[in-house]
Amino acid sequence: MAGTVGDLGEFGLIAEITAGLPTAPNVLVGPGDDCAVFAPDGPVAVSTDTMVAGRHWRENWSGPHDVGRKAVASAAADLEAEGARGIGVVISLALPAETPAEWARQFSAGVRAECAEAGLVLLGGDLTQAPQIVVTATVFGDLEGRAPVTRAGARPGDVVAFRGRLGWAEAGLAVLNRGFRSPAAVVNAHRVPEPPYGQGIVAALAGATAMVDVSDGLLADLGHIARSSGVVIDLDPAAFDIAEPQTAVAAALGGKDPLAFVLTGGDDHALAACFAPSDVPEGWVVVGAVRDGEPGVLVDGETWEGSAGWAHF
Amino acid sequence: MAGTVGDLGEFGLIAEITAGLPTAPNVLVGPGDDCAVFAPDGPVAVSTDTMVAGRHWRENWSGPHDVGRKAVASAAADLEAEGARGIGVVISLALPAETPAEWARQFSAGVRAECAEAGLVLLGGDLTQAPQIVVTATVFGDLEGRAPVTRAGARPGDVVAFRGRLGWAEAGLAVLNRGFRSPAAVVNAHRVPEPPYGQGIVAALAGATAMVDVSDGLLADLGHIARSSGVVIDLDPAAFDIAEPQTAVAAALGGKDPLAFVLTGGDDHALAACFAPSDVPEGWVVVGAVRDGEPGVLVDGETWEGSAGWAHF
Repeated sequence: MAGTVGDLGEFGLIAEITAGLPTAPNVLVGPGDDCAVFAPDGPVAVSTDTMVAGRHWRENWSGPHDVGRKAVASAAADLEAEGARGIGVVISLALPAETPAEWARQFSAGVRAECAEAGLVLLGGDLTQAPQIVVTATVFGDLEGRAPVTRAGARPGDVVAFRGRLGWAEAGLAVLNRGFRSPAAVVNAHRVPEPPYGQGIVAALAGATAMVDVSDGLLADLGHIARSSGVVIDLDPAAFDIAEPQTAVAAALGGKDPLAFVLTGGDDHALAACFAPSDVPEGWVVVGAVRDGEPGVLVDGETWEGSAGWAHF
Repeated sequence: MAGTVGDLGEFGLIAEITAGLPTAPNVLVGPGDDCAVFAPDGPVAVSTDTMVAGRHWRENWSGPHDVGRKAVASAAADLEAEGARGIGVVISLALPAETPAEWARQFSAGVRAECAEAGLVLLGGDLTQAPQIVVTATVFGDLEGRAPVTRAGARPGDVVAFRGRLGWAEAGLAVLNRGFRSPAAVVNAHRVPEPPYGQGIVAALAGATAMVDVSDGLLADLGHIARSSGVVIDLDPAAFDIAEPQTAVAAALGGKDPLAFVLTGGDDHALAACFAPSDVPEGWVVVGAVRDGEPGVLVDGETWEGSAGWAHF
């Protein structure tokens, strides 16, 4: 069996990755041609997301299966946030020739596993050599004739609600940074996010006026809605139910406020959306209100002290 | 004025890159939301292509404007090869924080320039930090109800024809590798390919039975058609009209056969297609024939000695 990606070669690796791939009736051409071809039912939503080894994951903390899952999940969460149903994904994988072939196999298995969760078909990709591993996932979704839910429609009088996890991945990262591997729940949340698949369409059908994927942190991402919609979003800190592992991690970190994880932790890919008060779907947690004013996000009427979330540069 | 990408920050740079972007009636949501949204007329073709600094270009040979153009052109050529009309592109740009902001501006200008050539709208992207520059362009095209032209439809009795340049970029690379900067025509061809935009649809409408983007080299890429279609492709070396700069470069390199550039040089993104003999569109050059046999590509009935083209690993 070939030991490295370089031994296996581009076409050998592609043959392994694409062997027996599931497909779908709306996929007319799958991997292996100049293009993949799919037949959507209406307008198409598209988003692209890149992860870089050493920056978005560390090799001693995340295995290749985790990386494959996370790459797909991070991009698929953007489809949810637009209210789209997933169609497919193309993956660009750049990696050193000396990468073990087994790394690529497990990465590919992770991609397939997350595609199954997210309702996506792996449509194709690109494989190239680079000094370190860089993964780009580009996803396509079908709006099925619905209007896209953008960041720009929030109105004074709306409430703000979220669905999914907040601050779990950040608590996991804090633990790993201290050299620990538990609590497992938050460490695993850092390795593989669990976006609330299907809830984007639920929110769209319920009449969400604006929606965003929480990738950088709730305050940072609601800030996009606030500025795009020209509104103030005021969060009620008492509305957040802080999970036990986060409280434990915050205490272990010398009395950090666990609310900071919830408000500023990224990478969990919860959905946050604005609704008329009567339109909030079941299972969504109302955590704030939308009102007129200088666009921005407040916590209990005040500006949050400290970072609002992840900075890319 | 901010000096580096890190000074400018993610959102500062995105604001610059997306300021005053052209759009199109079929683009419902442009850059700045979780997803871009477009409304196609029929099945959608998609392809993704990654370029890595130091591997796909060298900083002292290609400027950022060249890199932006080449990234878009390489991906757009795949849409041509499927017979699709370009809709849009999303660009993932990973780069070190210390990259001059001016590099990113010129890259972005190159992306816009090539989008204008290719009939594409820049729909969005991702910007992230990495130890070296990695660019992924993912393109979408509209088949406008036509069947995709795959690699699998060539039939014995067809002829093989191409449109565009063959071996120019490779001759340019050979010159640069020797430390020279001329002939300018081939050096520029290495920096920025000139795919024959619009000819993919022409070929599809003429009834092309199979088509491929020549990105790795004519022999390598026709090999994909031969294997996918289960046919032999036999090229006539006398049918190629070898351009003067290539002859000059081949002579300067100590009597290299200039035909090698034409048959194995990648990166020019010509289109190669198979047609019934009566269907070849105007301006396409017939260079071979399709027949029954063990799938593969021959030159004058013989196996080509030496590399068939670019190897990714």
